[in-house]
Amino acid sequence: MAQELAKLGIPHYYQTVVGDNPMRLQQVVRIACERSGLLIFTGGLGPTPDDLTTETLADYFGAPLAEDAAVLEDIRHKFSRRGRVMTPNNHKQALIPTGAQVLPNPTGTAPGMIWQPRSGVTILTFPGVPSEMKTMWQETAVPFLRSQGWGKEQIYSRSLRFWGIGESTLADKVAKFFDLQNPTVAPYAGKGEVRLRVSARSTSEAAAMAAIEPVVAQLQEIAGADYYGSDQDTLAVVVGRLLQQQGQTLSVAESCTGGGLGQFLTTAPGSSSYFWGGVISYDNQVKVNLLGVKPDTLARHGAVSHEVAQQMAVGVRSRLNTDWGLSITGIAGPDGGTDTKPVGLVYIGIASPDGQVDSVENRFGVHRDRDFIRWLSVCAALDLLRRRLQSSN
Amino acid sequence: MAQELAKLGIPHYYQTVVGDNPMRLQQVVRIACERSGLLIFTGGLGPTPDDLTTETLADYFGAPLAEDAAVLEDIRHKFSRRGRVMTPNNHKQALIPTGAQVLPNPTGTAPGMIWQPRSGVTILTFPGVPSEMKTMWQETAVPFLRSQGWGKEQIYSRSLRFWGIGESTLADKVAKFFDLQNPTVAPYAGKGEVRLRVSARSTSEAAAMAAIEPVVAQLQEIAGADYYGSDQDTLAVVVGRLLQQQGQTLSVAESCTGGGLGQFLTTAPGSSSYFWGGVISYDNQVKVNLLGVKPDTLARHGAVSHEVAQQMAVGVRSRLNTDWGLSITGIAGPDGGTDTKPVGLVYIGIASPDGQVDSVENRFGVHRDRDFIRWLSVCAALDLLRRRLQSSN
Repeated sequence: MAQELAKLGIPHYYQTVVGDNPMRLQQVVRIACERSGLLIFTGGLGPTPDDLTTETLADYFGAPLAEDAAVLEDIRHKFSRRGRVMTPNNHKQALIPTGAQVLPNPTGTAPGMIWQPRSGVTILTFPGVPSEMKTMWQETAVPFLRSQGWGKEQIYSRSLRFWGIGESTLADKVAKFFDLQNPTVAPYAGKGEVRLRVSARSTSEAAAMAAIEPVVAQLQEIAGADYYGSDQDTLAVVVGRLLQQQGQTLSVAESCTGGGLGQFLTTAPGSSSYFWGGVISYDNQVKVNLLGVKPDTLARHGAVSHEVAQQMAVGVRSRLNTDWGLSITGIAGPDGGTDTKPVGLVYIGIASPDGQVDSVENRFGVHRDRDFIRWLSVCAALDLLRRRLQSSN
Repeated sequence: MAQELAKLGIPHYYQTVVGDNPMRLQQVVRIACERSGLLIFTGGLGPTPDDLTTETLADYFGAPLAEDAAVLEDIRHKFSRRGRVMTPNNHKQALIPTGAQVLPNPTGTAPGMIWQPRSGVTILTFPGVPSEMKTMWQETAVPFLRSQGWGKEQIYSRSLRFWGIGESTLADKVAKFFDLQNPTVAPYAGKGEVRLRVSARSTSEAAAMAAIEPVVAQLQEIAGADYYGSDQDTLAVVVGRLLQQQGQTLSVAESCTGGGLGQFLTTAPGSSSYFWGGVISYDNQVKVNLLGVKPDTLARHGAVSHEVAQQMAVGVRSRLNTDWGLSITGIAGPDGGTDTKPVGLVYIGIASPDGQVDSVENRFGVHRDRDFIRWLSVCAALDLLRRRLQSSN
């Protein structure tokens, strides 16, 4: 939502979360009206008694509620299309304050509204289901806001993504950029990674980009190989693009991540052209039977070792007949760590098109939780492959 | 954080998000002081110029900042332990308002603080990194809040989780419970699933549970097999527990989910005792070579079909030598859909310990996005296995 508001050039300063309580919800509305002209509500439009948004707003602004026949018919139709009967509690979703416009919901049952209950206050309501909200935003809210004069001046921005460098080290390297006024540069932390956002406000995309692009180029040069992509380009997208450019294919062998590397790679639509699949070798017997890891290696070095990571990468590359094989084996915790092999110890194996194999040891730290260690493992594996693909470019 | 506050019986009514702007941050502090006695801040404690929380609070309450020598030494030590040199911008993290207590950060560099700048106002600050925040909360904030008299009366709750029933249908079935006062019952939407929260406030866990448990039992009975678990019991945890109870093992074959089913199964620590692994057969050739899907079946029925789902399940079960084989093949979109096989069409295959094989067709809808369709597919597969395991119990 914040990104969408920026696209329309609407400054967005406050977000508030409040529970299902009419009095507290009304207090929030009062505070919001004092400081903002546009109030956007999500959630609380459903059929249950604690869905209070519409009736609380109607009450606050002193407008009666009326059942909208067209909305009710639409809800009834949606139930019957799915072979279900509309339950009585759904009537509630057809109540709209007098003077408000219905904001149609093409996919779900609860519609939103567009309402100007008093001069200088515009209210938009949306259901809490993200996919429904997105459709309603694009199809109705954006055209409405443009008709109100928004969207002439927009905030344009690029978000630069980094892997392999900490926030304070990066901030120190690029400190002088934080004083810029047009564009502005600000750091923020992603999930295990650092980002820099470069933003400019302008009536023209060309003018904004003319200010943004030279700064982006300087930041990229300072960061070097630690910069991996911009905006929506995740490590999975960047690796996929490099594989496609080089006409190469990839398979994965996963132990502690249990499928997370394949899952992340396939978040990118079209990934089937370079990602062929893999083996989830959670159990050691699967490492032996499906990947050809030697029982002797497992016995001598343990499943979490350079040697096993390498044999997994070689095994999956050869069995799936791909150019690259990438493997992960580690201790994600919370149990299973020892003094010599602590929680957070993760080996990444990489088998290359030229038949070479290599591996890297990571120590993500015993204090980190299982989910985060698994996520760092997936990203570290992709980042290793990214650097190889970029250096062979 | 909301759950943790409930455990201490601290009523929590408002959450506000505000950008890195001193004036707006101070306005938020003013509003918060008017309505609450405890203010918890997360984020904005780092080394960069837009980390403003500490200095803005000090300014608002008119307290000078002073560098804390012990904190600075701790930060320097953490850098040197990782073989890095502390950059100058890290000095900022050692500044603490006069009168505030340091809230130590055992893992990261930015400490928080505990501060009572005026009567009736208590401030806690934490870094935005969730893992650091959690440790600091448990180790220091909880003992402090207990010392202030909190935690005698707690809010106890159970969250019941459902799959295979919509929110309005469930709400209609259990409508009479929404009027209860002790415990209270409220519905809320999870990611693709519905939940009911049953809560009671009490000085004793036994008294709270005596009120909660009979209501939970009634709700479970009304929902029947659509109820699958409570609280932290995800579908992956519930399926894992059933497999463990029955001494059975599982392997998976995944196409459109690309590893997401294995990833979700292995979120549960200890999953290696029943989950052996699987094959990510994103490419059709992998379905043939590693799972034994017949090329003829692929040619005649297509990869997204009952027949291929069944052969994938049978294939992975036999090659990994597990009791159960579970497979997913579908069209996650946004491209690849046709009139007869639209986006959202997903087949789940299940091969049972007795050698039987079966499959189920799901139509998750063309309007849903790729990530959500993949998530629904993973959950539908686990829910199918859950129902089989429960009926054979």
